Amino acid sequence: MSVARMLTGDRPTGRLHLGHYVGSIANRVRLHQRYESFFIIADLHMLTTRNTREDIAAVSRNAREMVTDVLAAGVDPARATFYLQSAIPEVGDLNTLLQNLVTVPRLERVPSLKDMARAAGKEEMPYGLLGYPVLQAADILCVKGQVVPVGKDNAAHVEVTREIARRFNHLYGEVFPVPETIVAETPSLVGTDGQRKMSKSLGNAISLSADAATVRRAVMGMYTDPNRVRADVPGTVEGNPVFVYHDVFNADRAQVADLKERYRAGRVGDVEVKEQLAEALNRFLDPIRERRARIEAEPGLVDQLIVDGTERTRAEVRRTLAEVRRAMGLTGAYQQVRRRAERARRAAGTRT
Amino acid sequence: MSVARMLTGDRPTGRLHLGHYVGSIANRVRLHQRYESFFIIADLHMLTTRNTREDIAAVSRNAREMVTDVLAAGVDPARATFYLQSAIPEVGDLNTLLQNLVTVPRLERVPSLKDMARAAGKEEMPYGLLGYPVLQAADILCVKGQVVPVGKDNAAHVEVTREIARRFNHLYGEVFPVPETIVAETPSLVGTDGQRKMSKSLGNAISLSADAATVRRAVMGMYTDPNRVRADVPGTVEGNPVFVYHDVFNADRAQVADLKERYRAGRVGDVEVKEQLAEALNRFLDPIRERRARIEAEPGLVDQLIVDGTERTRAEVRRTLAEVRRAMGLTGAYQQVRRRAERARRAAGTRT
Repeated sequence: MSVARMLTGDRPTGRLHLGHYVGSIANRVRLHQRYESFFIIADLHMLTTRNTREDIAAVSRNAREMVTDVLAAGVDPARATFYLQSAIPEVGDLNTLLQNLVTVPRLERVPSLKDMARAAGKEEMPYGLLGYPVLQAADILCVKGQVVPVGKDNAAHVEVTREIARRFNHLYGEVFPVPETIVAETPSLVGTDGQRKMSKSLGNAISLSADAATVRRAVMGMYTDPNRVRADVPGTVEGNPVFVYHDVFNADRAQVADLKERYRAGRVGDVEVKEQLAEALNRFLDPIRERRARIEAEPGLVDQLIVDGTERTRAEVRRTLAEVRRAMGLTGAYQQVRRRAERARRAAGTRT
Repeated sequence: MSVARMLTGDRPTGRLHLGHYVGSIANRVRLHQRYESFFIIADLHMLTTRNTREDIAAVSRNAREMVTDVLAAGVDPARATFYLQSAIPEVGDLNTLLQNLVTVPRLERVPSLKDMARAAGKEEMPYGLLGYPVLQAADILCVKGQVVPVGKDNAAHVEVTREIARRFNHLYGEVFPVPETIVAETPSLVGTDGQRKMSKSLGNAISLSADAATVRRAVMGMYTDPNRVRADVPGTVEGNPVFVYHDVFNADRAQVADLKERYRAGRVGDVEVKEQLAEALNRFLDPIRERRARIEAEPGLVDQLIVDGTERTRAEVRRTLAEVRRAMGLTGAYQQVRRRAERARRAAGTRT
């Protein structure tokens, strides 16, 4: 029995940070061992909200940085196929063919789209943004993905894919596997400001590629318990971002337990807690740094991976599209016209 | 200066009738002399409302019948390029790339879509049906159409194309001509039942390929003035379908004037009016029949026209798509990845 195929990936937004790691990368590092993995660099999806020439000009650099980070985080390049979505025009073809298999009200009910519509202002919602789940269905189905790891936020998207796959199979015969979702815990990590979700644009992020000094600086500037004006004041551990990070990234559980106890009792200063966190984070990042160093020692490695993955995926997608068009009868429609023309030519040839 | 390019066409629904002739074909016969003409056989548009395997299985036959009718009606095959939309997958690619250049509310305001949504039931509106004007924009722009003849009903569709073309050019540089609409008078012809617009499915149509006896039979059964129980009762000419047809198709204006006068005065029977109409219609259809006979004497002629037109159009569309992807920067994005990979390979080669 062959291994099931998994599709996962992101829009190419550049360097990844600890929030991405916790939210999805860690999960993918785990999962990609068990499946044949396709990692989409989803630049066509980027166009639904960012579509200037400048946005697109950044795709190539961002793609390389993102893939480098994913590899450094522990994804084995021998077990993953990375590809650039926009370099496979057949995806757009499939997107167009799937558009009639889902209704407008169904798409309007997808929760994350409701949020995006609210954010963009309903009047400004691009048609392609409403169709985000249809393009995603095209992504998943064009490689016949069977498994899609999702956060709770986008489980509803994949539900649309499942409906489209079933509808297609019902109308035209069994072509697509109906993909299973693996709903992963995707905790969102608070930023160093302790206020909002970690995000590069908010300046509260620590990137996976940060060096030790940068990490230390970011940690020393972190928000902690604001009521704790001196080290001998008992502090609150719960929701305190410094301890949130300790819980997630510090493998030395005994040290974390000790720090928490002393913090609650007012027997440790913020500085010591942060020094220990900086060290823990750097210990956590060290193997990622080593892998990155090995990757960067081979210039062109990541680019070649993307090229090879894109060519390989394109070949897959072409096979799928041929099958789709055959099943729908579109191939047959044109073939009949050609055959009739050819038969007539041949008959005319016989007569003369 | 080169001749402007016109795009026109229909969904492949089979044989054309007098209503089609009056509504659009007559206009196209006139216009195609002045422009470089592309006639789309719009089967992907058909999928927005009819998408079963049976619907698609009828495309090839319907396409041939439709093109035969258009040629018989007087379109010169040397001056027109016929193509099958679904045989050009690049149209779907362009459709996907254009989807973010128009908003959902803008599409919802297109009047004919409002009607379709009402007809389909709002809950059932396929996403692709809402995007009908986007796919139409892809059709027009993929051949860089400059002129689009439209009825009042679909002038609003082409307005969406114009907006998308302008938006694209603004974002990515001048690639598309902003097409001009030629809003034609497209009178709708009442059916032989005198009740509703002529339509094959209502059984009130006279097809362009009907033979003389069939035409005569259809005319003799036509609805006329219901108050006129005898030939000596004065009748109403206005809105009387028999006289509507006389006005449109009978080239003998003196005869029509005479019949009207006598009808109003109660000095002519319905039978005579209808006999004259049947003869007039057959005179009108005779040259169409002769052209059809010549076309059908060459088996495979129409099929070959569609094949040649589709190949020619596909080459055009591929050029357009290359330009579109270059202008957007998508070609560059992937090229950069490939070049970096290649440079690194070459550098590694030099070192060893």
